Amino acid sequence: MTLREVGIGIAGFGTVGGGVLSILRRHAGDIEARIGARIVVRKVAVRDPGKERAVDVDPALLTTRYQDLLVDPEIAVVVELVGGTTEAFELVMGALARGKHVVTANKALLATRGEEIFRLAVEKGVDVYYEGAVCGGVPVIRTLREALASDRINALHGIVNGTTNYILTAMAEKGEPLARALAEAQRLGFAEADPTLDVSGGDAAQKLCVLAQLAFGARLKPEDVLTEGILGLEPEDFAWGKEFGYALKLLAVARRCGPNGQAGSDQIEARVHPAFIPAGSMLAGVRGAMNAVLLHSDALGPSMLFGQGAGAMPTGSAVVSDIIDLARNILSGSPGRVPLPPATPLVSLRPHDEIRCGYYLRFTVKDVPGVLARIATTLAERKISIAAVQQREHQAEGDPVPLVFVTHQAREADLASAIREIDAYPTTVAPTRLIRIESV
Amino acid sequence: MTLREVGIGIAGFGTVGGGVLSILRRHAGDIEARIGARIVVRKVAVRDPGKERAVDVDPALLTTRYQDLLVDPEIAVVVELVGGTTEAFELVMGALARGKHVVTANKALLATRGEEIFRLAVEKGVDVYYEGAVCGGVPVIRTLREALASDRINALHGIVNGTTNYILTAMAEKGEPLARALAEAQRLGFAEADPTLDVSGGDAAQKLCVLAQLAFGARLKPEDVLTEGILGLEPEDFAWGKEFGYALKLLAVARRCGPNGQAGSDQIEARVHPAFIPAGSMLAGVRGAMNAVLLHSDALGPSMLFGQGAGAMPTGSAVVSDIIDLARNILSGSPGRVPLPPATPLVSLRPHDEIRCGYYLRFTVKDVPGVLARIATTLAERKISIAAVQQREHQAEGDPVPLVFVTHQAREADLASAIREIDAYPTTVAPTRLIRIESV
Repeated sequence: MTLREVGIGIAGFGTVGGGVLSILRRHAGDIEARIGARIVVRKVAVRDPGKERAVDVDPALLTTRYQDLLVDPEIAVVVELVGGTTEAFELVMGALARGKHVVTANKALLATRGEEIFRLAVEKGVDVYYEGAVCGGVPVIRTLREALASDRINALHGIVNGTTNYILTAMAEKGEPLARALAEAQRLGFAEADPTLDVSGGDAAQKLCVLAQLAFGARLKPEDVLTEGILGLEPEDFAWGKEFGYALKLLAVARRCGPNGQAGSDQIEARVHPAFIPAGSMLAGVRGAMNAVLLHSDALGPSMLFGQGAGAMPTGSAVVSDIIDLARNILSGSPGRVPLPPATPLVSLRPHDEIRCGYYLRFTVKDVPGVLARIATTLAERKISIAAVQQREHQAEGDPVPLVFVTHQAREADLASAIREIDAYPTTVAPTRLIRIESV
Repeated sequence: MTLREVGIGIAGFGTVGGGVLSILRRHAGDIEARIGARIVVRKVAVRDPGKERAVDVDPALLTTRYQDLLVDPEIAVVVELVGGTTEAFELVMGALARGKHVVTANKALLATRGEEIFRLAVEKGVDVYYEGAVCGGVPVIRTLREALASDRINALHGIVNGTTNYILTAMAEKGEPLARALAEAQRLGFAEADPTLDVSGGDAAQKLCVLAQLAFGARLKPEDVLTEGILGLEPEDFAWGKEFGYALKLLAVARRCGPNGQAGSDQIEARVHPAFIPAGSMLAGVRGAMNAVLLHSDALGPSMLFGQGAGAMPTGSAVVSDIIDLARNILSGSPGRVPLPPATPLVSLRPHDEIRCGYYLRFTVKDVPGVLARIATTLAERKISIAAVQQREHQAEGDPVPLVFVTHQAREADLASAIREIDAYPTTVAPTRLIRIESV
């Protein structure tokens, strides 16, 4: 019996592309045994065919024209690893238009152009798989699409950016300032030379868009997500958090909320920001460059997926799992077996002003009588209820003192207005630091 | 357009059956939207149709004869929730023989009769799904079958029994003796009136058989698994562990090992026993009745799944996810899309004597000169290398003293022989406690 073959074309051959090719080679026997067919790489499109690569490719497979993948009738699956949203978009749309299935690990593309891509895929009756786009090898996409198809998800809390989690772990465990932790992360390859997209929270916001569509049927663009990065965090915030029993993480959060904040409505909050979480929680145990997604759903309750969120092999393994899944669909003649997220959004975005959570507020004030009372009054006027207060003695006469308030659940807009007022006091000597608290 | 229908029959209607029916009802709209078909319960087989139930069933659906499900041509999927291995086995084999697909949450059945069941399913070209059999709603079966199809798993460490994890958490956090923690677990419904299967490790061993087949292509029976329960654990073991930086968990472990203990060979170890693990590890953070499975694989590295391992709704949601998956296969005409584990075992079981790990040994000895030296010599004669020793002062003159050794990696049979010798010393006043150490 001749083994059946599924032909694929790979576009873009950087780190992840190398991982995909090595996994396909190393596990070729296992994969053949599992799907009863051979996966054959027909073409690899690259920018510079002369470039030295960590993983060898047969030069006969190389092409510099993405178009070659689209017109090859023996390529059933196009694997898009080009990155960016321009060329990658053209390539994906071109593949779908020709009835080819697509695997992509491109979160930016899905977050910004997902709607058009999914619409064309449904129209053409082909599949788009994208496990590698979020959290590398952690099978969160597959779990949301399939395992939790029986359930209703109420909240999603993710540590979805390894660079920032590496930096925050170093700050928490070594008491380092951010600049030193970032430099160390860059030296070790956990942060890019230009880390803006990571430290700003922008990367996490893109991933949250992809996850929120699957988990809630939301349709968000990255700019819809309330996004705060980690650049303002200081070692003393970690120290204060520790006193209150908190760990500090950059979280991507999406959750259902009703008109008065109840679960189960057709509105969601979507936000990426540093958050204090209980030090004993599962997410607090996620250290270094690791990723995790914690879900709360109706039937299953809390559940969590944890693993490496980036790198040639973890992301490569996610891409290869998608190729295998597509090969199974092709071999069994069942494309579209698991439908793409619905075209019509099932939930709307709650205005950021209406977000409700607990808050940590670190005021920097002159040590004069009445300051604490005045701050407490300003908060009380907005019905912001105080859960804890701590004040440190100043080091030297006349030095500013830090004053930390932890609030019960309050409304984001009320906090913002209170801080505006307090920061304008003559006794306030530095902008107030606000960090949200999540009871995950 | 008339909505297509997939008919199912449910056999056994206890806790999980009730969960399945409520989820199918509550999420009927979502499920229809996701699969483009309606899942219709055609029959529910029960022992006592007059019994009061937490979830209402239309009396017209009830039958006392499992046979009725098998002969109904409108039932495409039989959901086996009968439990046990006799009636359940007949039912499952009967369904497969008639070309019906099967969903089961019965780990005992799969661990003991899985081979025959999978063989008949393959012969008949139908599917057996069993996400609910291990770790309730945690999608570990699906992840092993599909997400990691691209990868090679080298080790699996699971907290797969919620009852014992609840008890061990209470012992660790409250310093309680086992009997009190067990009684409390029973009072709160986390332990059965007869907890033998849980506390003996037997339940975890059954689950390990199911997991090891998927992860490694092993074919194990529960009696093949080295199995030690938690009954011998004492509060002082937790206290000693804490001093060495360890948490104490009942682990189910399966991992590849070569002739000299290297990874990547065609032998595996399979064992269930209390184990000390680093207090900062992800598994150590799994508290109460929660479950988790930590995998180490070639490409992905470490990854973990965490969630509720039992209960009507978590296990019910796993069963309904399987029903949905089967419905997709039926609707797209692709049964057997994901093959069952291979019929021929791909790995063999390493003899338990050859297991290698670190060990914690708590000796109870008379405080006379030379005891420590003699124990150290007995260990050294077997090339058991010592990583740490601690001795406590005795409370009163003449009292026995505890003496704790932590060893480097050593061979199980050497440890057993050393302990036999040491326990026969005239200076040894109680049997030595051995607890294995896993560096997960």
